[in-house]
Amino acid sequence: MKVLIVYAHPEPASFNGAMKDQIIETMTREGHDVTLSDLYAMNWQAATGPDDFTFRANREVLRLQTEQAHAWRTRSFAPDLAMEIDRLDAAELVIFQFPLWWWSLPAILKGYVDRVFAYGFAYGQGASLAGKKALCCLTTGGPAASFESDKRGTILTLLRPVHQGVFDFCNMQALPPFVAYGAARLDDPQRREVLINLDHYLSQIQEVPALTFD
Amino acid sequence: MKVLIVYAHPEPASFNGAMKDQIIETMTREGHDVTLSDLYAMNWQAATGPDDFTFRANREVLRLQTEQAHAWRTRSFAPDLAMEIDRLDAAELVIFQFPLWWWSLPAILKGYVDRVFAYGFAYGQGASLAGKKALCCLTTGGPAASFESDKRGTILTLLRPVHQGVFDFCNMQALPPFVAYGAARLDDPQRREVLINLDHYLSQIQEVPALTFD
Repeated sequence: MKVLIVYAHPEPASFNGAMKDQIIETMTREGHDVTLSDLYAMNWQAATGPDDFTFRANREVLRLQTEQAHAWRTRSFAPDLAMEIDRLDAAELVIFQFPLWWWSLPAILKGYVDRVFAYGFAYGQGASLAGKKALCCLTTGGPAASFESDKRGTILTLLRPVHQGVFDFCNMQALPPFVAYGAARLDDPQRREVLINLDHYLSQIQEVPALTFD
Repeated sequence: MKVLIVYAHPEPASFNGAMKDQIIETMTREGHDVTLSDLYAMNWQAATGPDDFTFRANREVLRLQTEQAHAWRTRSFAPDLAMEIDRLDAAELVIFQFPLWWWSLPAILKGYVDRVFAYGFAYGQGASLAGKKALCCLTTGGPAASFESDKRGTILTLLRPVHQGVFDFCNMQALPPFVAYGAARLDDPQRREVLINLDHYLSQIQEVPALTFD
């Protein structure tokens, strides 16, 4: 499979960094073709805006969906964005590796979604993402028990905007997430165990059924 | 009241821009002291990272919460971030004005939360936000009917990561949101009506009870 890893953490020595390295190691060993988009290392521009487009449909007023559809049709996205669109277009499995911040994606990864999942390319008539698989690999600050109460909701509730709002909306197959709970408080043996579990999960990822939504 | 508007849209001529202008007009007329943080105009840095800190607790490995607490204690946040922290610290009511993108905040506004709601300042022992009021004013792409089904969830379900995950977590009072549904498809008389409703809502905002969470 062609695998695209979209990785969002500013610290290479973080546990997110270790998980990203494990993903690369496992998927390469399993014979997949792996590409890494390291958003922090790339100094990825998070905020969508007029600079996303090199040739505007309307130079007076910026309407994002109109400009996205126009840029997709005329291949006039800004170079950084065009490269990421090409990578996602080529991928059969995309993996988001990130820390859960404020019950949601880090801003730099939300900005990947805002910009790369462009109207025309990612959704709308003739869109390109249908059937691709998508997986969230993440760390949380709180321990597993803090995601069991009704107050906050389970991790599947919290990730619904990504799984259903982004992946399913674009007719992708959202796979069950891999979660390292309470990552900051894990000791080294516990971290090794998480990475072994991640390795095992990824080694049979092609057999994992996608999530379904009511 | 001291009112801080945090506004996140790249196009001044957008309906989000008109709503922001209406908020300024109404709150000024009502005698409040209004400050505007126009994130796009400020070229706000969305991604939190090492550049948030001018004086690191640990120069080797970046642990964000540790550095945030240290920067708050030693007043060593980067200047752009320090200014926004001061503004939020001074505010009695903060208003987020934004378009709902992918069931959540635009990346530039998520980056405001990731950076400004720093550990030590916004939450944790001795934090500063308790009792402040917070309000989401937003536009949606879909019409109101598309937020009534169980599939996607109501607007309160979708905004729970902000209302409960951010505001309530920081002991702020989350006020019921003001929503302009299907903003892109509203004609001019409909837009004027929305702005009149916004004006009315804001003019009695001090009497509006906060949301409660189970």
